[in-house]
Amino acid sequence: MESLELEVDQANQRFYEAFESLDIGKMNQIWAVDKPVKCVHPGWDLRSGWPAVRDSWVLIFNHTAGIRFDVTEVEIMINGELAWVTCVENVTTRVLQGEQTSNVLATNIFLRNGKKWLMVHHHGSSVLR
Amino acid sequence: MESLELEVDQANQRFYEAFESLDIGKMNQIWAVDKPVKCVHPGWDLRSGWPAVRDSWVLIFNHTAGIRFDVTEVEIMINGELAWVTCVENVTTRVLQGEQTSNVLATNIFLRNGKKWLMVHHHGSSVLR
Repeated sequence: MESLELEVDQANQRFYEAFESLDIGKMNQIWAVDKPVKCVHPGWDLRSGWPAVRDSWVLIFNHTAGIRFDVTEVEIMINGELAWVTCVENVTTRVLQGEQTSNVLATNIFLRNGKKWLMVHHHGSSVLR
Repeated sequence: MESLELEVDQANQRFYEAFESLDIGKMNQIWAVDKPVKCVHPGWDLRSGWPAVRDSWVLIFNHTAGIRFDVTEVEIMINGELAWVTCVENVTTRVLQGEQTSNVLATNIFLRNGKKWLMVHHHGSSVLR
C-alpha cells in the first residue's frame, strides 16, 4: 500500500475504533468538526453539520451496550486532499438477549489536514443478502 | 450558487435524467468510465469498476417500466477536482399495479475533467420514515 493510502486506511480504522469505544470524545477526534460534515446511518435521514452529526452518535452510543466491527473489502481512492473509502462493516452488536450481526456497506470520505485525515462524510447502508 | 457549484449541480441533475431515461447509453456519458468507479444501490452490495457498475444499471433498467425523480435537499461540497453531493431522491416507480413511491438518500461523488464533472461514486440507501 502507498504511504498516503496507509494514512487513509489508518484513519478509517480509527473511525471504527472510536465507534467501538462508544466514547463521543474519541469520535470527536475523528471528524473535521469545523467543516460542514455529513452523516447517514443505515435507514436514517442525513445529518448535516457537526452538532447534528454528534447528536446522532450520542444517541447511538446511549442505546448500544457493545459493538464490534470486522471491516472487510476496504477500497481507498485518493484525489488531492480528498480520500473516499468503501468497506463492508461486519457488525456484531451486544443486546439484552445475546448478539446480533449485520452487514453494512459504508462510504467514508476523509479530508487531509497536514498529516491527519479527518472524516467529513459517513454513509452507511444495510446490505440485504 | 457559485459557478463550480452550478456545474456540479447540473452534473447531478444529468445523472437523474439519465436514470429516468432508462438508457444505458445516456448513463454511460455520466460516469468516469475509465476510472475505478463504484456504485451501491439501496440494499445492494458494492459494484466496483465500470463493467460491474454498468451491469447493475442494465439490470435495473431492464426491470423498470418507468421511473421519475424529484430530487430535493441537494447539498454540494467541492474540494479541488472532487465534489460530493448529498440529496434525497423522491422516487416514483411505475409498476404493473400502478405507482410506488420511495425515499432514497444519495451520496454522489464527481471528478472534474476540464469543464465536465463525471460520476465516480453513487451510494443510495433507503430512508425508513
